[in-house]
Amino acid sequence: MANEKMVKAITSMEEDFAKWYTDVCIKAELVDYSSVKGCMIIRPYGYAIWENIQRIMDDHFKQTGHENVYMPMFIPESLLQKEKDHVEGFAPEVAWVTHGGDEKLEERLCVRPTSETLFCDHFKNIVHSYRDLPKLYNQWCSVVRWEKTTRPFLRSREFLWQEGHTLHATAEEAKLETEQMLNVYAKVAEEYFAMPVVKGQKTEKERFAGAEATYTIEALMHDGKALQSGTSHYFGDGFSRAFDVCYTDKDNKPVHPFQTSWGTTTRLIGAVIMTHGDDNGLVLPPAIAPIQVVVVPIASHKPGVNEKAEEIYETLKKVSRVKLDNSDQSPGWKFAEYEMKGVPLRIEIGPRDIENGCCVVVRRDNREKIVVALSELETKIPELLKAVRDGLYEKALERRANMTYDVKTLDEMKKNADEKPGFIRAMWCGDRECEDKLKEICGVTSRCIPFEQDKISDTCVCCGKKADKMLYWGKAY
Amino acid sequence: MANEKMVKAITSMEEDFAKWYTDVCIKAELVDYSSVKGCMIIRPYGYAIWENIQRIMDDHFKQTGHENVYMPMFIPESLLQKEKDHVEGFAPEVAWVTHGGDEKLEERLCVRPTSETLFCDHFKNIVHSYRDLPKLYNQWCSVVRWEKTTRPFLRSREFLWQEGHTLHATAEEAKLETEQMLNVYAKVAEEYFAMPVVKGQKTEKERFAGAEATYTIEALMHDGKALQSGTSHYFGDGFSRAFDVCYTDKDNKPVHPFQTSWGTTTRLIGAVIMTHGDDNGLVLPPAIAPIQVVVVPIASHKPGVNEKAEEIYETLKKVSRVKLDNSDQSPGWKFAEYEMKGVPLRIEIGPRDIENGCCVVVRRDNREKIVVALSELETKIPELLKAVRDGLYEKALERRANMTYDVKTLDEMKKNADEKPGFIRAMWCGDRECEDKLKEICGVTSRCIPFEQDKISDTCVCCGKKADKMLYWGKAY
Repeated sequence: MANEKMVKAITSMEEDFAKWYTDVCIKAELVDYSSVKGCMIIRPYGYAIWENIQRIMDDHFKQTGHENVYMPMFIPESLLQKEKDHVEGFAPEVAWVTHGGDEKLEERLCVRPTSETLFCDHFKNIVHSYRDLPKLYNQWCSVVRWEKTTRPFLRSREFLWQEGHTLHATAEEAKLETEQMLNVYAKVAEEYFAMPVVKGQKTEKERFAGAEATYTIEALMHDGKALQSGTSHYFGDGFSRAFDVCYTDKDNKPVHPFQTSWGTTTRLIGAVIMTHGDDNGLVLPPAIAPIQVVVVPIASHKPGVNEKAEEIYETLKKVSRVKLDNSDQSPGWKFAEYEMKGVPLRIEIGPRDIENGCCVVVRRDNREKIVVALSELETKIPELLKAVRDGLYEKALERRANMTYDVKTLDEMKKNADEKPGFIRAMWCGDRECEDKLKEICGVTSRCIPFEQDKISDTCVCCGKKADKMLYWGKAY
Repeated sequence: MANEKMVKAITSMEEDFAKWYTDVCIKAELVDYSSVKGCMIIRPYGYAIWENIQRIMDDHFKQTGHENVYMPMFIPESLLQKEKDHVEGFAPEVAWVTHGGDEKLEERLCVRPTSETLFCDHFKNIVHSYRDLPKLYNQWCSVVRWEKTTRPFLRSREFLWQEGHTLHATAEEAKLETEQMLNVYAKVAEEYFAMPVVKGQKTEKERFAGAEATYTIEALMHDGKALQSGTSHYFGDGFSRAFDVCYTDKDNKPVHPFQTSWGTTTRLIGAVIMTHGDDNGLVLPPAIAPIQVVVVPIASHKPGVNEKAEEIYETLKKVSRVKLDNSDQSPGWKFAEYEMKGVPLRIEIGPRDIENGCCVVVRRDNREKIVVALSELETKIPELLKAVRDGLYEKALERRANMTYDVKTLDEMKKNADEKPGFIRAMWCGDRECEDKLKEICGVTSRCIPFEQDKISDTCVCCGKKADKMLYWGKAY
């Protein structure tokens, strides 16, 4: 059967998770490798997922009052250097443009790895009075970071993202913005991608270069590795001082405004693959699936089958992104193909179904087969799409619970890190030294200090001193 | 009156058209200058126009079966060099990346000036059989060309665009695609931007580097200069031979497929500014206006005025992109502000209007004031938006007719080029020498060989030899 042949075409998760992942990326036609080392080609099916993610995110940004802008893709070296911590963090991994045509440039330009410096430079021009605040901006673009080892979506030299940059009159307002956008990310991840996330703050070590505080949503992949899926930063007035951004407040006094930035990337596609995928390929949450329902006629040479399939297609177009596949491939081939592509629902319609006035709907997430009366299809399909989302979320939540471990001692931590993939929850005293030691001994990094704290013990998992912070630790992408 | 103060804040067209243009770009808050020489910042109002253009274009691309993809922003030097004419055309104006972090790259990468080479490299991987064709791809991205002199939207070192790239089994099909996409561009320009265009073919001299044929839509700006507003190229199998793209046809024979590309850029925003703008600022065609209707309460301290304005806003939200400005600025200030920003319709609502159950609608394009019953607003506003589009189109068409001149001799051509800004229509023998000479003597370039031909005389305007092609000539942006 074509179905089985197709299934065997990808490596199983158990056999080699990394290979499974790249197999899915290639076989589901999400990406192709390019001649540009470390850069990927996003193919139509992969890009359509990104377009859906963009639309959902962008709606949320606009609902919260943000406006889109476009900044140059280059940053002059002198501009990058204005904020000390920032340049230290990014300079080692930027791509440098040194020539325009045949001429050597007077000053090198880097291709933006992130655009705080450009936004500050612009804010300096346009913000003068308290009346000019807040500025709530977002940008959709590509950025470049010269990574050594790369993988599709997860880490590539160029990737697509959105970067929000906002400027506020007060520290309090900026902090609320940082928090608001983290909540938007968490909501989108959970509701639309059916992907449970832990919300929390990064330790100083893991903070964004130049930020006073970095918040994150962390998801747990199938293989037990953590994936940072979105970050939101509070900058205080550090950048606005460095860039001399200043406004006159209501009392006519000069004040440096307070700043945030927040970003998510095409990495989210990687997160979705590794959260929901299985050995048959991709499994897409309906909200971002380019095709939500595929209609497959069975025994389509029989009279009336193609016509009925067409009718179903026309009906479902009103309530979903539906595709009718009446090509001359076999049903088995089609089943495997759309399973590989993670289409949430498949509708099979054959002569006997037509006689009975019904069709068979097959869920991608749990393979459940549901007989649905044709007359009820238009109301039933949206319900089933919702059920798929809920099913995916529950399954991911359960897996995360089964892969999250509380530990109290360094020995336990080491044993867990070595033997049980997943999140490790443990207390921490707050010392960088302990954080470094855990990385060295156990190979884990601190993922975040979650907003929802539990008390696992009174002492630091590493040094044994008094500790009141519970952290998530893990191996991470 | 604040209105007048504002109006005087921009240079008049007559005084200095170039200055008028940049004044509009800055005062309407479309762009800001950046610290990156030759690159612009697209501000929220400018970017919102671009988002509307994107949505309209993208819908048309999808309706004609195209899919979006994303290619790397870099092109290795060796890849750029594979097609001889192409590299000759673009190499002198690309930006070169030579270093990643501290390391010198083994091979220089240019930032894409256009992506034919990348698409071909990908096509080679994914096209093997006639079943894989056609490939109908489009990409939204930014590109870089190292221009010497730059102006917002019209010519900048980085700009945003879309580039379509398609691959077909036959030359005929590829030619039809080239033509189809030129027609899409012309339709969008005329229907949505209210901008009349001349459709035609470029001469060999003006062709895209590497193309067998280039088609163009040419618009005429307020100052009589031509603006190339979109191009569509037919490549034959030149690129696919150079990149070794090959498919097996139905008879199992290897064939090089045939290729097209087509593009439009943020330059379209410049075209709209210079087609419809006036001495009060921007005038936007409704289809791409971020705000189509602005509601301005008059004497808003009087009871009921703000409430009624709010009511109108709520009603019009259903049928238009409407903004209610109930800020504490004076009505005069608001009138000037939204005129500068080119908002197609302004609604004034004051106590007397409310008594009469009506409001005053003012058209931006011709300043006509129309009294509309509040009960009819919801049906009337869409009609008026349509009327603004039609009015703008008619006006632009009439101006173009008044600025288009037919000439038969070199003397006439020279006199026209020197004294009368506009399109010049004249016969041409087809010799590159005559084309060069007209540029040298009259300062004009060939804009296109229009599809709609008229016979102006029997002889070439330059050499006097027999000629059967009528061309549009002009000074161009």
